[in-house]
Amino acid sequence: MKGKFLETLSSETVFSGKKIRVVKEALKTVGGEVIHETVKHPGAVAILAMTGDGKLLMERQYRHSVGRYLLEVPAGTLEAGEDPITCARRELLEETGYEVVGIKKLGAVYTAPGYSDEILHLFAATVRRAAKQALDEDEEIKVELVEPSRALNLLERDGVSDAKSVILIQMLMARPTLLGRRMGRASAP
Amino acid sequence: MKGKFLETLSSETVFSGKKIRVVKEALKTVGGEVIHETVKHPGAVAILAMTGDGKLLMERQYRHSVGRYLLEVPAGTLEAGEDPITCARRELLEETGYEVVGIKKLGAVYTAPGYSDEILHLFAATVRRAAKQALDEDEEIKVELVEPSRALNLLERDGVSDAKSVILIQMLMARPTLLGRRMGRASAP
Repeated sequence: MKGKFLETLSSETVFSGKKIRVVKEALKTVGGEVIHETVKHPGAVAILAMTGDGKLLMERQYRHSVGRYLLEVPAGTLEAGEDPITCARRELLEETGYEVVGIKKLGAVYTAPGYSDEILHLFAATVRRAAKQALDEDEEIKVELVEPSRALNLLERDGVSDAKSVILIQMLMARPTLLGRRMGRASAP
Repeated sequence: MKGKFLETLSSETVFSGKKIRVVKEALKTVGGEVIHETVKHPGAVAILAMTGDGKLLMERQYRHSVGRYLLEVPAGTLEAGEDPITCARRELLEETGYEVVGIKKLGAVYTAPGYSDEILHLFAATVRRAAKQALDEDEEIKVELVEPSRALNLLERDGVSDAKSVILIQMLMARPTLLGRRMGRASAP
């Protein structure tokens, strides 16, 4: 235990669902006791994917959690024991029908460390069209090819954008060579 | 209902905690039925805060959800009915002892639209030292003043950074005049 937390007094899984669990803990502090609730998440990947002609591969889909359609970079949740890079290749192919030519890791972020343990692994990939989409039952995804310079503006929907997409497109704007042809050759399988 | 979801067959609050709720729904689709779990969150704010001498005001704190200390921009959760800009001023003062001189909204993001409805409101502010910190029982926050050019590297802890801090610092890197003196004057209360 770190910070003000001296000891875990109790820990209980209060919800266990398809993808997330919620754990409620009582933590002892110097001054008394606090309740802490954590969303436990298997982790996820998000991919800045560029086609051979320099377009960003994006997805428009209805997000039931927020009640609207959003434009997002391809992303997905890790399966049990799955390596993030394997997940990135799988989700790209399933959700968009594009396969990875070259791929590299850009880093990782905690999406909401105040209440969730989710780690989002960030990748850049060059891609080419390979197959039809193979969507899950609850997915309806429209693939859109977007000019990188327009992408940040296109993300915004009523003043709100998707956080992971903002991070990856900002990275590309800061370093336009991020998806240069060399990456594709160097990391090709 | 939009996308593949035709109708909500059932909806149940399966967890109701201090800050978050979890709602489990059965949704009718063309092909059958899917279960959807949503974390309901009151929304939050994050602030890119700059002192008079051009340093970024950051916080280092232990995050129990992820089990480590993180360096983050000041942030906090909206109270019931609270305006985001009021929340930003309040959290800054409570967590750091700095008060807002000028402030402007930079936008908003969905932190994890796959399973959470959280909207994070993003602000830029010029700040000055005003008071002592007034922390909650479960907070232990160390204020750090950071050179903007070093901030992105300092965020990373074992390869993982805080997402909201990455977004705000990348915005500043893309537009170094974001926190120019004019903002402070124009928006001062």
